[in-house]
Amino acid sequence: MLKANNPNKKSSQNISLSEITNPNAIAQIQHFRKKEISTSELVNGILNQNRTALSRAITLIESTHPTHIEKANSIIKSCLPHVNQSVRIGITGIPGVGKSTFIEALGIHLTSLGKKVAVLAVDPSSALSSGSILGDKTRMEELAQDANAFIRPSPSGSNLGGVARKTRETIILCEATGFDTIIIETVGVGQSEIAVHRMVDFFLLLQITGAGDDLQGIKRGIMEMADAVIINKADGENSQNAQVLQAAIQKTISLFPKKDSEWVPFVSCCSALHKEGITEIWQTLTSYFETIKKNHFFEENRKNQNLDWMYETINDELLHQFYNQPAIITQLEINKKAVQNNEKSPFEAALELIRIYKK
Amino acid sequence: MLKANNPNKKSSQNISLSEITNPNAIAQIQHFRKKEISTSELVNGILNQNRTALSRAITLIESTHPTHIEKANSIIKSCLPHVNQSVRIGITGIPGVGKSTFIEALGIHLTSLGKKVAVLAVDPSSALSSGSILGDKTRMEELAQDANAFIRPSPSGSNLGGVARKTRETIILCEATGFDTIIIETVGVGQSEIAVHRMVDFFLLLQITGAGDDLQGIKRGIMEMADAVIINKADGENSQNAQVLQAAIQKTISLFPKKDSEWVPFVSCCSALHKEGITEIWQTLTSYFETIKKNHFFEENRKNQNLDWMYETINDELLHQFYNQPAIITQLEINKKAVQNNEKSPFEAALELIRIYKK
Repeated sequence: MLKANNPNKKSSQNISLSEITNPNAIAQIQHFRKKEISTSELVNGILNQNRTALSRAITLIESTHPTHIEKANSIIKSCLPHVNQSVRIGITGIPGVGKSTFIEALGIHLTSLGKKVAVLAVDPSSALSSGSILGDKTRMEELAQDANAFIRPSPSGSNLGGVARKTRETIILCEATGFDTIIIETVGVGQSEIAVHRMVDFFLLLQITGAGDDLQGIKRGIMEMADAVIINKADGENSQNAQVLQAAIQKTISLFPKKDSEWVPFVSCCSALHKEGITEIWQTLTSYFETIKKNHFFEENRKNQNLDWMYETINDELLHQFYNQPAIITQLEINKKAVQNNEKSPFEAALELIRIYKK
Repeated sequence: MLKANNPNKKSSQNISLSEITNPNAIAQIQHFRKKEISTSELVNGILNQNRTALSRAITLIESTHPTHIEKANSIIKSCLPHVNQSVRIGITGIPGVGKSTFIEALGIHLTSLGKKVAVLAVDPSSALSSGSILGDKTRMEELAQDANAFIRPSPSGSNLGGVARKTRETIILCEATGFDTIIIETVGVGQSEIAVHRMVDFFLLLQITGAGDDLQGIKRGIMEMADAVIINKADGENSQNAQVLQAAIQKTISLFPKKDSEWVPFVSCCSALHKEGITEIWQTLTSYFETIKKNHFFEENRKNQNLDWMYETINDELLHQFYNQPAIITQLEINKKAVQNNEKSPFEAALELIRIYKK
């Protein structure tokens, strides 16, 4: 169904018209909505580009239930040999910069070129701020109804490592489902940028004028990671300010050390709302990918990212297994009470549990 | 030496004049600067309020060397029974908001009241941005030379859990050394706020006018954690704008759910540069601490934070022990190569290492 001819066809529940009118497709959707479904059925669904199967498999990845985790691991293993040569693009920017509008404009441009676009998010703060990015699909209403696009909010979790791992695994499933352009959104505020930068081929920073401390502090770290800095909302009265900011950022970037990719980050203006500048941005991205595939940075970078992925999986698994061991579950409850009653220091209580686990 | 009468005495290397002119003090400093020193000597030094011993012990906490970690653990254990009833204050705000100036003004006010102030920092991004907060003591030149103040930059590390754990352990050592007011600085951008909020009794958010998205997005989550929002740089022409922002924040905060502490967060303006408003802020903090000690929130909150600390120590230890096991060290190297050569998927390589570790 990802091969629908008209990517702009609209229908309810993100299903293309062909799916609704085609009895086979309806049967398939109903099939994948059943309560119990085997992992091999889900894998087959994914490899047949069925997005309901994809959604259900992602739900397994995001679950903390031991049976679900086992199923998820088996699905990922089966999908790994079938991943395609997608491109992975990270997009960041502080709240208010227009990330959703930009991603929607870019996504629609990409599907109009025949691309299949998956939009994921990494937002470990969503547990706290109770407002996950991409949580509300209406923020990208047009793209959400595009038959060649798939949008999935950030997995929840206060632990960045866990959120990042789940997102990496979701990328694999999206690629096995035939999505060739993976966009990963994150909020422009720190650690999650670093995590997203580690899982993409291209990292794009969105900016706006008048955001205060554009060029200093933590932002500098994020700007150093960026392959492109795009000033959004460069329309109407704001156009001139945007150009001033563009020049300032250009100057800052020229002072940064050369990138391993040999790519010189580009700075440009756009108006995602008016869909201005989007085509040019995609053209530049295309030439970026040509460059880094030619000089083998693409390949090298993916190899390094795979190492990161290995470490993330190890760390996440170690903690998971510890906290699910029966002896630990029992003693943890005892030590928690002892710590709360000031009978044991948290430090000693922790080291004692580790000693028990090692036995 | 923390009991020097004049806290504004200045001298080189953060040592009070009495230390320089007193032969015993000089001998003691020289003693703690020796290359090899036993843990019991360091513990004695700490309990005798010697800050050179404190510095060296913190260096052990921050080390990744197995012998140092063992020493550090033993020092913490010995110091735990001697921690005093300090207050722990977290301070955050985006870069440019004037955190250093504010902390210096507050710190000097506190030492003038006879308090002993330790300033620590949590900044896991410092590894990436290569500019740790508090890294440069000259940013708080006056406070750094105050005999009753101790300033320590953020421990380095890209892993927030590890940085947070080291900071908690450092708090214990500072308290055992007699510091009664612990200030923990962090950058106002996300996960590290949550970590710091979990280790302090009072959480203060610094703001400035014109910072753009003051009231939206991720900032909302941080604002919800705040016990006070202080608008800094409220001087000269900016005074009126600061008052407008104060009213807007006040309104936002009034819509938040009631805090467990029953404390209604206060919003006020100050000019840290001109030392205006600092006395009033400290008065409000004093009444905060009276309130939460009376209604037992202080105690309850500390208990919950101790649980966090226990979990942090467990998680950090688990990873540390895994990566230091000889069988893992060997196989990790093999699997890293296999992943880089695309002979093994990162996912399978990770699960294989976990299997080996479990044996």
